Amino acid sequence: MDQQVKANGNCSGGVVEGPTNPMVTPLLTDLYQFTMAYAYWKANKHQERAVFDLYFRKNPFGGEYTVFAGLEECIRLIANFKFTEDEISFIRESLPGSCEDGFFDYLRGLDCSEVEVYSIAEGSVVFPKVPLLRIEGPIAVAQLLETPLVNLINFASLVATNAARHRFVAGKSKILLEFGLRRAQGPDGGISASKYCYLGGFDATSNVAAGRLFGIPLRGTHSHAFVSSYMSPDEIVDKSLRSADGSRSCEDLVSLAQTWLSKIQWSSSLRGIFGETNQSELAAFTSYALAFPISFLALVDTYDVMRSGIPNFCAVALALNDLGYKAAGIRLDSGDLAYLSCEARKFFRAIEKEFGVPGFGKMSITASNDLNEETLDALNKQGHEVDAYGIGTYLVTCYAQAALGCVFKLVEINNQPRIKLSEDVSKVSIPCKKRSYRLYGREGYPLVDIMTGENEPSPKVGERILCRHPFNESKRAYVVPQQVEELLKCYWPGSSDKPREDLPPLQDIRDRCIKQLERMRPDHMRRLNPTPYKVSVSAKLYDFIHFLWLNEAPVGELQ
Amino acid sequence: MDQQVKANGNCSGGVVEGPTNPMVTPLLTDLYQFTMAYAYWKANKHQERAVFDLYFRKNPFGGEYTVFAGLEECIRLIANFKFTEDEISFIRESLPGSCEDGFFDYLRGLDCSEVEVYSIAEGSVVFPKVPLLRIEGPIAVAQLLETPLVNLINFASLVATNAARHRFVAGKSKILLEFGLRRAQGPDGGISASKYCYLGGFDATSNVAAGRLFGIPLRGTHSHAFVSSYMSPDEIVDKSLRSADGSRSCEDLVSLAQTWLSKIQWSSSLRGIFGETNQSELAAFTSYALAFPISFLALVDTYDVMRSGIPNFCAVALALNDLGYKAAGIRLDSGDLAYLSCEARKFFRAIEKEFGVPGFGKMSITASNDLNEETLDALNKQGHEVDAYGIGTYLVTCYAQAALGCVFKLVEINNQPRIKLSEDVSKVSIPCKKRSYRLYGREGYPLVDIMTGENEPSPKVGERILCRHPFNESKRAYVVPQQVEELLKCYWPGSSDKPREDLPPLQDIRDRCIKQLERMRPDHMRRLNPTPYKVSVSAKLYDFIHFLWLNEAPVGELQ
Repeated sequence: MDQQVKANGNCSGGVVEGPTNPMVTPLLTDLYQFTMAYAYWKANKHQERAVFDLYFRKNPFGGEYTVFAGLEECIRLIANFKFTEDEISFIRESLPGSCEDGFFDYLRGLDCSEVEVYSIAEGSVVFPKVPLLRIEGPIAVAQLLETPLVNLINFASLVATNAARHRFVAGKSKILLEFGLRRAQGPDGGISASKYCYLGGFDATSNVAAGRLFGIPLRGTHSHAFVSSYMSPDEIVDKSLRSADGSRSCEDLVSLAQTWLSKIQWSSSLRGIFGETNQSELAAFTSYALAFPISFLALVDTYDVMRSGIPNFCAVALALNDLGYKAAGIRLDSGDLAYLSCEARKFFRAIEKEFGVPGFGKMSITASNDLNEETLDALNKQGHEVDAYGIGTYLVTCYAQAALGCVFKLVEINNQPRIKLSEDVSKVSIPCKKRSYRLYGREGYPLVDIMTGENEPSPKVGERILCRHPFNESKRAYVVPQQVEELLKCYWPGSSDKPREDLPPLQDIRDRCIKQLERMRPDHMRRLNPTPYKVSVSAKLYDFIHFLWLNEAPVGELQ
Repeated sequence: MDQQVKANGNCSGGVVEGPTNPMVTPLLTDLYQFTMAYAYWKANKHQERAVFDLYFRKNPFGGEYTVFAGLEECIRLIANFKFTEDEISFIRESLPGSCEDGFFDYLRGLDCSEVEVYSIAEGSVVFPKVPLLRIEGPIAVAQLLETPLVNLINFASLVATNAARHRFVAGKSKILLEFGLRRAQGPDGGISASKYCYLGGFDATSNVAAGRLFGIPLRGTHSHAFVSSYMSPDEIVDKSLRSADGSRSCEDLVSLAQTWLSKIQWSSSLRGIFGETNQSELAAFTSYALAFPISFLALVDTYDVMRSGIPNFCAVALALNDLGYKAAGIRLDSGDLAYLSCEARKFFRAIEKEFGVPGFGKMSITASNDLNEETLDALNKQGHEVDAYGIGTYLVTCYAQAALGCVFKLVEINNQPRIKLSEDVSKVSIPCKKRSYRLYGREGYPLVDIMTGENEPSPKVGERILCRHPFNESKRAYVVPQQVEELLKCYWPGSSDKPREDLPPLQDIRDRCIKQLERMRPDHMRRLNPTPYKVSVSAKLYDFIHFLWLNEAPVGELQ
């Protein structure tokens, strides 16, 4: 089994496979992680036990929620974190010549066996400031992990969130297809977008490599170039097609389609809607139908949707129908998608009625062409007959906001809590090794996330608890939770004997994501002016944060 | 030599190495390229010779130029394009069961030996509509290449252009550092951003993997976490440092730095500027200086830049100076960078003067923290003392515009020119297998790019030629070129005997890019309201486009 196929494997129990992208190695980090590691080593501080929180500060896309993704790839890196001799030689070349040999011996023996990783489950709905991952371990190792972990989670979570938002606007009943590979930010920008859009609620991708790596359903038919490549029906050499049940053969599907085209042209309900259709387009459609009679789907906007594409499609679809095949539908890739989809639907219904072909009116209509949240919303407002959307550029590059700002902050070292101050209150870190919980209310909705010190008693069902805003003293509320969910679970126990959570298959992560999104209170989810979900700290943690803050901040002098 | 090191190799002459990212395989394409390939094969049309142009329609970032990048990776894919048995099995599973075996035998033998690739040189300044690549070959193979080629060029060119734009605003004299790995769109979003930002004029990266793969200079020192990880100077065990010339030793660099700190505090020119500095920060700086005495550079904003970071840095730098070491400088990562850099400069100059340390006033100041074109421009307007910029998120994710819209259009099949029509004129393709030229004027600036039919005579130096806008009949101009440069060169001759252009090393591509940008007329390059660079077609090609257009477009009927 080669490298690529492995990515689809479940990592539960035994050995964890390496990262899906072989470029993810311990060198995929910032140089300063190595200079710091050297300085720690030189000061004999490298083994000091540190705790880092990985979190983001603001939900993307103007929303009030984020989908957490990328965990499995992080654990794959951690489980296989080991420098090769070549890598160590390169690090040596990259550092000043004065660096001592002992450091490189240290790197040679370095792995993540002393690191513990706690994480929220992949596919969860998550919120700002609450740690997605907590990394505990020797400070030098934890720092080396900073850059790759942030890299692996930032885009994964961003694009999964973008997919979830597109699903929200499109509605549950529509088919969502990710078509972004060509416009993505590089090869694995494309592959990981396919993976995480599926996780976030898409149904399929056009990306064959991603389909193979992750078992995502694949979709796709043909492009404009396919249509333009045909000049006339004479080009088609073998025009014969056996019927679906194998009982008979049609010697000339081209003629059959042409016959149907003139029937449509002279039908009572459709007469005068179109004149001569483009014959090279009819040739292309017929040729495609000969290759794929079972699932014929045509792109109908190469020349003119209503005057050529739709009539040509219907002619071929009716010819296929004669042979017992049911065409799949059309794709529209330009023009006014709301209008054209409604006109196409009318045409299909007229054909169903006129020629008595049951189900023809329900022919599937796929729309593509630079779709995004706004255009989906506009289509809904205009009214349309689209059944499936193919979405590319805006989805996979997260065009509306191309980065999520995950950070990795030191919150404790040698059991001493640490705080990172900033002139900007939103950038002050929440110190201490913490636990976090999601508290659910009477109606089943999540009400608030709360962080506590590690040794505080956990919130209890039915017991009132004070939830405080971490930085704003006037914002606080009592909550009586009906359900308490601890958020951080152990995904990498290092050399501790803690039980390790399994890494579930992608399908399960996707299910979790869809369920969690459905469970949110609707006002947090709406596109315009959503209500922020509350994130809080316990009263005890609140007091400690502010004690430490006053302790560390220099006192100003106004002059 | 392992996979990763190969990426740095020059591909001239012999064998072309595989793609830098092992995930770039013939499966990195859209499913519809395989369904079309099957339909072509079934219609016995798969070997028909097609010509495709790869181009973009609009310059990114509101500018009037684009840097072309990604060619080498395209050629690496093409040179090694071959399906494995596992890949063929997967394709078979992904297509309907009715697909015939012969097709998979065809895929088994498929490679790019019958494909020819013509391209503009990587690192060139390029413009909309002019083909970046022209792909000639059997239509089924050329279509399979569409998605990966567009993917490999879109982001590469986008991020190289973004880098060039940042260089333009920062100015030639500044050091530009790419610090984006953690915020990039996935692992190879980060690695390719590092490569192409260097190509576009950056000086170095923080990304160790990219440094190794492409030989890009690496830069980086330490983070806030490093500073927060220290509690007090007592933690430093070995405080001794040998002088730069090895002649003497300082037993306690901490005490020496503390002595300097009080000297600075009581110096006549600096008295009263600051009080007690943060001692854990002083400990972190001293520890870092002990590890890297030769190139000491400190991040000075963990607690308070002017009241703690700068005085602490100067104290350690002066202690190092006593031992014959010259500190490298500081990094500012928050706050008002214009103001703080000027204040820091004043402080450094006061120290140079007060303590007679030559060059101390010229200490390098690096600024980072969410920089982009706009903030660089604002810094220039405010006045600042920054010598180097570390730029991350906005640069590597191309936040201002996250995608370039390269397309791949059929322009000829079986020697028959093809046109793709659209209701939107800007989306109409320019038909025919073409040549393109850059014409230079008297002052050495490029004046216009012109496309001609393949067999037209080339424009000649000193001879007047009519350049026409491809779609607007009133826009045309006579040009007498002083220099004529043919743009498309053969980078992959297939089985033809055409000479093949070498793939130059990254450093040469970067040099080409910088020279080409410098050669542009300044009004095309400015940030606000730049003048569009002219792209034209010959009179003959103009006439042919419009003949074909009228021929293909259906005639409307107003009702």
